[in-house]
Amino acid sequence: MIKAGIIGATGYAGNELVRLLMGHREVEICWYGSKSYTGETYAGIYRNMSGIVEDVCKDDNLAALADEADVIFTATPQGFLAGLLTEEILARTKVVDLSADYRIRDVGVYEEWYKIKHKSPGLIGEAVYGLCEINREKIRGTRLVANPGCYTTCSILTAYPLVKEGLVDPGTLIIDAKSGTSGAGRGAKVGNLFCEVNENIKAYGVTDHRHTPEIEEQLGYAAGRAVTVNFTPHLVPMNRGILVTEYASLVRKPDGNLPSAEEIAAVYDQYYGKERFVRVLGDGVCPETRWVEGSNYVDIGFKTDARTGRVILMGALDNLVKGAAGQAVQNMNLLFGFDEAEGIGAAPLFP
Amino acid sequence: MIKAGIIGATGYAGNELVRLLMGHREVEICWYGSKSYTGETYAGIYRNMSGIVEDVCKDDNLAALADEADVIFTATPQGFLAGLLTEEILARTKVVDLSADYRIRDVGVYEEWYKIKHKSPGLIGEAVYGLCEINREKIRGTRLVANPGCYTTCSILTAYPLVKEGLVDPGTLIIDAKSGTSGAGRGAKVGNLFCEVNENIKAYGVTDHRHTPEIEEQLGYAAGRAVTVNFTPHLVPMNRGILVTEYASLVRKPDGNLPSAEEIAAVYDQYYGKERFVRVLGDGVCPETRWVEGSNYVDIGFKTDARTGRVILMGALDNLVKGAAGQAVQNMNLLFGFDEAEGIGAAPLFP
Amino acid sequence: MIKAGIIGATGYAGNELVRLLMGHREVEICWYGSKSYTGETYAGIYRNMSGIVEDVCKDDNLAALADEADVIFTATPQGFLAGLLTEEILARTKVVDLSADYRIRDVGVYEEWYKIKHKSPGLIGEAVYGLCEINREKIRGTRLVANPGCYTTCSILTAYPLVKEGLVDPGTLIIDAKSGTSGAGRGAKVGNLFCEVNENIKAYGVTDHRHTPEIEEQLGYAAGRAVTVNFTPHLVPMNRGILVTEYASLVRKPDGNLPSAEEIAAVYDQYYGKERFVRVLGDGVCPETRWVEGSNYVDIGFKTDARTGRVILMGALDNLVKGAAGQAVQNMNLLFGFDEAEGIGAAPLFP
Amino acid sequence: MIKAGIIGATGYAGNELVRLLMGHREVEICWYGSKSYTGETYAGIYRNMSGIVEDVCKDDNLAALADEADVIFTATPQGFLAGLLTEEILARTKVVDLSADYRIRDVGVYEEWYKIKHKSPGLIGEAVYGLCEINREKIRGTRLVANPGCYTTCSILTAYPLVKEGLVDPGTLIIDAKSGTSGAGRGAKVGNLFCEVNENIKAYGVTDHRHTPEIEEQLGYAAGRAVTVNFTPHLVPMNRGILVTEYASLVRKPDGNLPSAEEIAAVYDQYYGKERFVRVLGDGVCPETRWVEGSNYVDIGFKTDARTGRVILMGALDNLVKGAAGQAVQNMNLLFGFDEAEGIGAAPLFP
Repeated sequence: MIKAGIIGATGYAGNELVRLLMGHREVEICWYGSKSYTGETYAGIYRNMSGIVEDVCKDDNLAALADEADVIFTATPQGFLAGLLTEEILARTKVVDLSADYRIRDVGVYEEWYKIKHKSPGLIGEAVYGLCEINREKIRGTRLVANPGCYTTCSILTAYPLVKEGLVDPGTLIIDAKSGTSGAGRGAKVGNLFCEVNENIKAYGVTDHRHTPEIEEQLGYAAGRAVTVNFTPHLVPMNRGILVTEYASLVRKPDGNLPSAEEIAAVYDQYYGKERFVRVLGDGVCPETRWVEGSNYVDIGFKTDARTGRVILMGALDNLVKGAAGQAVQNMNLLFGFDEAEGIGAAPLFP
Repeated sequence: MIKAGIIGATGYAGNELVRLLMGHREVEICWYGSKSYTGETYAGIYRNMSGIVEDVCKDDNLAALADEADVIFTATPQGFLAGLLTEEILARTKVVDLSADYRIRDVGVYEEWYKIKHKSPGLIGEAVYGLCEINREKIRGTRLVANPGCYTTCSILTAYPLVKEGLVDPGTLIIDAKSGTSGAGRGAKVGNLFCEVNENIKAYGVTDHRHTPEIEEQLGYAAGRAVTVNFTPHLVPMNRGILVTEYASLVRKPDGNLPSAEEIAAVYDQYYGKERFVRVLGDGVCPETRWVEGSNYVDIGFKTDARTGRVILMGALDNLVKGAAGQAVQNMNLLFGFDEAEGIGAAPLFP
Repeated sequence: MIKAGIIGATGYAGNELVRLLMGHREVEICWYGSKSYTGETYAGIYRNMSGIVEDVCKDDNLAALADEADVIFTATPQGFLAGLLTEEILARTKVVDLSADYRIRDVGVYEEWYKIKHKSPGLIGEAVYGLCEINREKIRGTRLVANPGCYTTCSILTAYPLVKEGLVDPGTLIIDAKSGTSGAGRGAKVGNLFCEVNENIKAYGVTDHRHTPEIEEQLGYAAGRAVTVNFTPHLVPMNRGILVTEYASLVRKPDGNLPSAEEIAAVYDQYYGKERFVRVLGDGVCPETRWVEGSNYVDIGFKTDARTGRVILMGALDNLVKGAAGQAVQNMNLLFGFDEAEGIGAAPLFP
Repeated sequence: MIKAGIIGATGYAGNELVRLLMGHREVEICWYGSKSYTGETYAGIYRNMSGIVEDVCKDDNLAALADEADVIFTATPQGFLAGLLTEEILARTKVVDLSADYRIRDVGVYEEWYKIKHKSPGLIGEAVYGLCEINREKIRGTRLVANPGCYTTCSILTAYPLVKEGLVDPGTLIIDAKSGTSGAGRGAKVGNLFCEVNENIKAYGVTDHRHTPEIEEQLGYAAGRAVTVNFTPHLVPMNRGILVTEYASLVRKPDGNLPSAEEIAAVYDQYYGKERFVRVLGDGVCPETRWVEGSNYVDIGFKTDARTGRVILMGALDNLVKGAAGQAVQNMNLLFGFDEAEGIGAAPLFP
């Protein structure tokens, strides 16, 4: 039994971490950190936890927590962890960071997209990008996991095998993403009120959403060269779920033909055939967010189009689970040698 | 490890049973029975179960299933089980019936409200009404559990202690209930289309909803005399959840005073203080369906009104869990001596 | 062509006023008053008005506006208008107040329920309660209309004829109300975020909601004596719409029989048969909010219950139209002798 | 005052036609045609029309209707009108067809995408594609209007000026579209039930949706050559609204530079500056379906991306108004010389 602390336990991702860890056999939570609700009972803020969590919220004192916890989850605003994390803290505990602070290798890119000065660039090199299906072995050996963003996890996992194997031209990649509203967080903003989101769909962050460089960096590793993409997120009137629809031109084979659906399926199978949490659907079957809700699964589908020479890739996940807290737990499981699915193996909830 | 069969596995309650039993350590499902989808893969119908359930749907042959299963769940239309169940089947297996066939003691009342002839009235006497918090001991000893309805579970548990202890006049009881749309089932009807339900609220079954006599019978046992109530269900544009708002006149104490909030809280505590799945909230705190979603919890609150001499009781549960599949699993756990919370102990999912 | 000014034009009710007045042939808006957005273009805040409204928001200077406008609508917080309104302003313009400041005759009751000191109690006597179907003639002759609340309009119109004609015992009246979320306003509060409201239903303001005394006062006039009711509002995950479900004991006739459905229908017909905006549905037909959305209609239905001796009354309206802005326009039409339906005669929008 | 008949008056588009025509000063409806509800009162099926429409539904006898009506709207399944329309009918009345029967010039393309034999190909040449902003003059002179599809209207209007003026390479055009559920019609299908659509987003018809060739044909006229696009529709949990997000590579100018945002805005202004129902938003402002709900407006926005050399175009409309019934009324207004905005000039409804 290890001890876990959460900084940022009263955001939506924090609450999801609590939910998942309550069902984890190897972990107990020792610290519910919250800047806004210090001193209040956790179950008074999240009444789903009434009768389940008895604790009172503590502050966000990372150094103090490092003395108590075997692992710290930070579900905090950009820049928070970078401003506090030190070599000394990492010597005492492991950290899974749900913010973007250590996701991007090039500190200049981080600072440009996030409009913020990075306070601990020296630690970026140590962080491992926590996309378990891609970096499993590296994650096992690190002290600092940069847990990927929700859009990013979905976008990368959907395209990765085809980019890596050269079946698509990464320079043509366009990612049109749709997200439920929990991704916008629990801040009290007019734009996130029920009446503003309900019966509406809109794009936002067009051409400049912060998840773009994260996607480009990881797909660049797959392509073996720099990749530039258009990434367009949309806000959908639902609580949970991300769907990405990706467009890319297929690369003709030496014989001049386009890759067939069977060949694409075979590549996906090669990468994900043994993955517990990636379900590749048959040719032409479209993923839907409802089929992954509440679970750590990513569903992937595709359809080739001979008319345009493109392939349309689709991926769906629950932004709070595989897109945040679930993947964080999966990373923790890897860090401590637990069964990778412990605590996150539940079947999706429908309807 | 026992074997469970489900007849009606492709309705919403059936799918919820599958979801919960997938996480149960003592049960494996041996039969996914479906009249409409016999021969099709279960995961092709409910794609949340893709990669989790490999089975093909079987038919609804109860007698054949009784040879294989230690327990049978029937999530079937009214009259189905009553037309097939026999003493001989019950000699071979246990049955948890999610339909109304054995919930009502008086077969005449059943036939009047359901407009259907009961085919096996001789078995009604053996059935135990499966409201675990009220009938726990009787359930342990039976072969046939009549699993309560969703509205009924919520309505009865909310009022039961106050009726039983005589704090309210059951003759004044009015139950105004609100339900998510999964309660209407998966049948293809215009009235349940997205555009008909969304952005709408309506009452239905006013004065004659079939759950009325079930509530009256059980609260009648509590009151020690016949009880007649108004029960009015409403359809709410959400997937899951039932909220009941109940109104009743408080009975003055011998000293002429109305019972206080403390006295009411004490009665609730006496009945539910040790119950795992009933959470009684503080005086004036209103239950909300979001705080129980996906879980087997019932949240109960109340508020007294000196101006009118009434108390307003409120209860919330997830209609597919505590209102159907979760309670069915809880009953199965009692039948077989498992931990009562096994498979249904997950924390609610929010948002 | 008269000139209208709006104080509080950037709330939901204010925007609905703008929408309706844009389609009104006898009115032009001369003042878009907004405390929060003074100096910004109105269409920049409410982009539905892009290309329709060119104006910039002004402040909330009531006295200055009184010099320009023939009628002022105030869609402002409680206490605002009471703190500014004077005899002198009323000598220059007419006022339709969408707040509660002049709705309640007894200033003590107002101050008790609203926890606020009334600053101009001397003007209460002049105000006419603007429920057009009840007070039509009085409204025509006044300078100050107290536009009823959304819950109140629906609750009172639904019960009024039966209370007035003595068919129901007003002492038994229980009103269970359900509202869409636009009724909660456009303030940035966590409780009104999409993820907090969606997939949820809850009661609030149980026993002490501020609309209670307003309902009691008006139904008291109908009953000819003081009336005390239980009024319980609920928040429903939809944008618009209010549904009330009301329970009352029927009063037996001299012959000992309960009033029949025909007799109840006849009473409704007597009061509303010629009303343009009240649609009484047949016996047992349940009103639904979707059938009145975007319109000024109130739909009313009822069902008698011989088993309990009660009648269940149901009423539905759009809280922003008949429950706020539409009724305000209807009142303005009466004040100025326009066709009562001018600007508010559009058919409901479905789906 | 002209007389209009509707065949298919009981679908969602038919009901929207009724709503709009009720507010039109120059038209009265003489025929509510419905295959499924012949003989039933219209207001019994669509209770929003209670007290507004007194008529009983008639059958779908087009020839009989042609004797009574000055204009016939057909909101019917594909192939229905093509199977009945004759030169003789067109000699007696004008027809606005909301189905796809006469939208596509090349009958072979129609038959390939719709999997249906066209029964009156000889009339295709006479039909005018009823996109008012593009074909206004041709519409005025015809007897047969092929009213465009919902996705199509939005997709074409958003891209048309840039394609026509050569600012984008039409061969790179990718259209990712999102639609509310009313677009799926009122048929009782499991896939359109509330619980299947709510809390979900999915793509469908990937690479082979029937609106594709309609878009390609019209944009081909703009480009002056054949255009092939990827069009991917998605189903969104909301009643109304379509949003398209379109991606295309900008064509470099002779000086080697990409067109600027100002230049793009100028082209839009050239085409739509005087259009009543097209609102072009500023650079980088994203259209949202909520701002056009219930109205005939199309909102268009765009954002250039120097990193990728692409422009992202976005368009939003109400699929039942500008995407169906509203545009049909606009076409009728053109056919009869009425004010083009008569009956469809209402401001959008929010929230």
